[in-house]
Amino acid sequence: MRILKFLLVFFLIGTYSHGQSDEDVVRTIYSTSLTNGKSYDWLDYLSNTIGGRLSGSTNAQLAVEYTKAELEKLGLDKVWLQPVMVPKWVRGEKEQAYFQTSNSFERVNICALGGSIATPTGGTKAQVIEVGTYKNIEALGEEKVKGKIVFINRPLQPELINTFEAYGGCSSERYRGAAEAAKYGAVGTIVRSLSSRQDDYPHTGSMSYGDLPLEDRIPSAAISTNDAVKLSSALKQSPDLLFYFEQSCEQFEDALSYNVIGEITGSEYPNEYILVGGHLDSWDLGDGAHDDGAGVVQSMDVLRLLKESGIKPKRSIRVVLFMNEENGLRGARKYAEVAKEKGENHIFALESDAGGFTPRGFSFNANEANFNQVLNWKPLFKPYFIHYFEIGGSGADVRPLQTESNVVAGLRPDSQRYFDHHHASNDTFEHVNKRELELGAATMTSLVYLYDKYGVNPLPEPSKIKD
Amino acid sequence: MRILKFLLVFFLIGTYSHGQSDEDVVRTIYSTSLTNGKSYDWLDYLSNTIGGRLSGSTNAQLAVEYTKAELEKLGLDKVWLQPVMVPKWVRGEKEQAYFQTSNSFERVNICALGGSIATPTGGTKAQVIEVGTYKNIEALGEEKVKGKIVFINRPLQPELINTFEAYGGCSSERYRGAAEAAKYGAVGTIVRSLSSRQDDYPHTGSMSYGDLPLEDRIPSAAISTNDAVKLSSALKQSPDLLFYFEQSCEQFEDALSYNVIGEITGSEYPNEYILVGGHLDSWDLGDGAHDDGAGVVQSMDVLRLLKESGIKPKRSIRVVLFMNEENGLRGARKYAEVAKEKGENHIFALESDAGGFTPRGFSFNANEANFNQVLNWKPLFKPYFIHYFEIGGSGADVRPLQTESNVVAGLRPDSQRYFDHHHASNDTFEHVNKRELELGAATMTSLVYLYDKYGVNPLPEPSKIKD
Repeated sequence: MRILKFLLVFFLIGTYSHGQSDEDVVRTIYSTSLTNGKSYDWLDYLSNTIGGRLSGSTNAQLAVEYTKAELEKLGLDKVWLQPVMVPKWVRGEKEQAYFQTSNSFERVNICALGGSIATPTGGTKAQVIEVGTYKNIEALGEEKVKGKIVFINRPLQPELINTFEAYGGCSSERYRGAAEAAKYGAVGTIVRSLSSRQDDYPHTGSMSYGDLPLEDRIPSAAISTNDAVKLSSALKQSPDLLFYFEQSCEQFEDALSYNVIGEITGSEYPNEYILVGGHLDSWDLGDGAHDDGAGVVQSMDVLRLLKESGIKPKRSIRVVLFMNEENGLRGARKYAEVAKEKGENHIFALESDAGGFTPRGFSFNANEANFNQVLNWKPLFKPYFIHYFEIGGSGADVRPLQTESNVVAGLRPDSQRYFDHHHASNDTFEHVNKRELELGAATMTSLVYLYDKYGVNPLPEPSKIKD
Repeated sequence: MRILKFLLVFFLIGTYSHGQSDEDVVRTIYSTSLTNGKSYDWLDYLSNTIGGRLSGSTNAQLAVEYTKAELEKLGLDKVWLQPVMVPKWVRGEKEQAYFQTSNSFERVNICALGGSIATPTGGTKAQVIEVGTYKNIEALGEEKVKGKIVFINRPLQPELINTFEAYGGCSSERYRGAAEAAKYGAVGTIVRSLSSRQDDYPHTGSMSYGDLPLEDRIPSAAISTNDAVKLSSALKQSPDLLFYFEQSCEQFEDALSYNVIGEITGSEYPNEYILVGGHLDSWDLGDGAHDDGAGVVQSMDVLRLLKESGIKPKRSIRVVLFMNEENGLRGARKYAEVAKEKGENHIFALESDAGGFTPRGFSFNANEANFNQVLNWKPLFKPYFIHYFEIGGSGADVRPLQTESNVVAGLRPDSQRYFDHHHASNDTFEHVNKRELELGAATMTSLVYLYDKYGVNPLPEPSKIKD
């Protein structure tokens, strides 16, 4: 059986394509990305010339036009825009906040959460009730909550190694906090920023009022982690302190926007689609370099690196730059809806939306047989220190494409620094390292190359080919 | 044989110690580091209160005193200083450099290389001859080199995934360039900085004149990568341009300094030593946060984390903060010499000297049987994304301790950003991430825990235990 296993591995991994082994092709892809990548230059423009790209904004439209024009320069078979209506929320004036006691006054750093209403003109000023999680608000009841600002002070758990787990554990505080506090008569919510660091940056992000009537909604803001600690400490000394905040954000009518799509049409199986993508919109505080400028430019470079490496795909390879991941997911839903209508068979879809840090591997939503197939390719990635191949999780924009027989996946970069920058004004270009970004693009391209070459074509399960 | 293998693995990995499995102990170590680590605070002080710590400097002495005092607070069994004479080289005034043609003048960023002599008063001004490597100087000969400045313009290879390989491929240019150029009558050397980035920072580092007599020595400096590109381009247009540089560095008499050593004495095998360390000296341009402040504070925290995690070592655990790794290795040689005199049996020595970035694993200098032992522990590290266990390479300070039967190793953090900062003025505290630093300390502590528990105790080779 050892010989059979060897032959199988040789057949699947060592097969020559145009005289090159998969090892050679993957090496060419990485070398090309590191010596002749475009992702960093594109990101420079998206971040520094355009900047933050919130759905419905002028910058989002500029990003649509820029990336379309850049894709058109690559000599793809098709480049087009897919129209989609997106929510348009605007932050307005810079938020102001402080807390005061009879003998002290302290300014703090806040930012409105995406989707929040404004405070009344002149701001909101009230006493504060602190909770560790929005789930504790119910037990406090109207008696303790009514007329107050609810301060939800839940730190990310530092002992979780994967910071996305720590974030996932706290993201409902931001998303649901205001709706829950409003039920008991609160006049506002202040949520501790979902950051891995102690610093002065407030981190925005989406929140929802659920089915709460318009007149019952209350303004909600994030406070920096340093100021959350400060406020909590001040409350211990002065439970009656007053907190003031003012924000002028506003929700407008939905606006017309676009997914940007480019395609290399497959030479043998044009209706088998392999998709790579990221989301073009970003929050407005920084320039969205990590979230998700990095994923956008890496995905664009996947198609370019295939061409530069002399690979002519058998299947259709699409780059999709999704609009509105941050506060609506409208682009992803539209893309999936149209793909379904047209009967496009997406065999594999890969998103990069976890920052432009050193890639460590991939997470997959896939059935067992399909997952076993990809495990067979793992040795090809070892020279590039790509070691993480795990089931569970892909990306918000590609998840709507999942079926029982295809594979959707997410690039998994090192996560330690991601939530230092996520949704904050320090998500900026200078925090992206060129080599790390390029390694991510190469890692994505290599997996796309393998899916193009072999298709989603389950092997016998490893237990059946092991001796 | 499967059952025997299972039992062996169970015996070695699953054994209970004080009721806790190794998995539990390792989890405790990581959690303690991430929730209650000291490494980041220590690094803040070393970097921001003390700063760059070149051998023989006042700052190096301050670092000796500070780390000794901090180790004394930990309740170790012994803390002491080991005297060692170190070279004392001083940079002097900030270097100046420019190049000029008949119609242009351009200032460039340089820094003297460690060990270089000064330029004559008023600086050195001469025509430039560019080479891709110092090995090409011989072929040019005196005719083309005499009276000129040799510009060695060799970039790090971007396609090498491990940046240490790229650095290793170029470091002789910096170390030997001046000695070689001087043989053919050059009046100075300008070496392209050994950096992975294009930017304006010159990177220093050690150089040597070998056995060149004093009167034949020529000044040598590094130039930033951006300015190397600029100079090379200008030379194509104006081969006769003049380059000017001035530096006032000086070598003084050797100075008295110290290795800083702390020990938890083993309860069962006190003469079996396990060493963790980094080097306390750094170059002078930045504050030495990555090189090697990070290794210093991680090593200090290893002993503290063992204590905090309730582990009472059977073997003696030593932290050694070596002096003078950068330009002499005198501390490491002294430590090894004294250890040998005293017959101290160092079974395992681990250095952290590759930056405070996310840890990826370890590299080992070890015989095959000892390496196979450590491979058996690899699964314990998987939850922490530690995947790299390879033969080859340890650390400059621990290498002198290597024997045929012991293990010396190096922590291997992600290498992508290391040479952006290495030996340059941007090797500073704000470029170290707290979580990444703490994960490194926990990774080191976990391996030390395993070596303390099991000793260097080779398993049968895998071929003999495999079915």
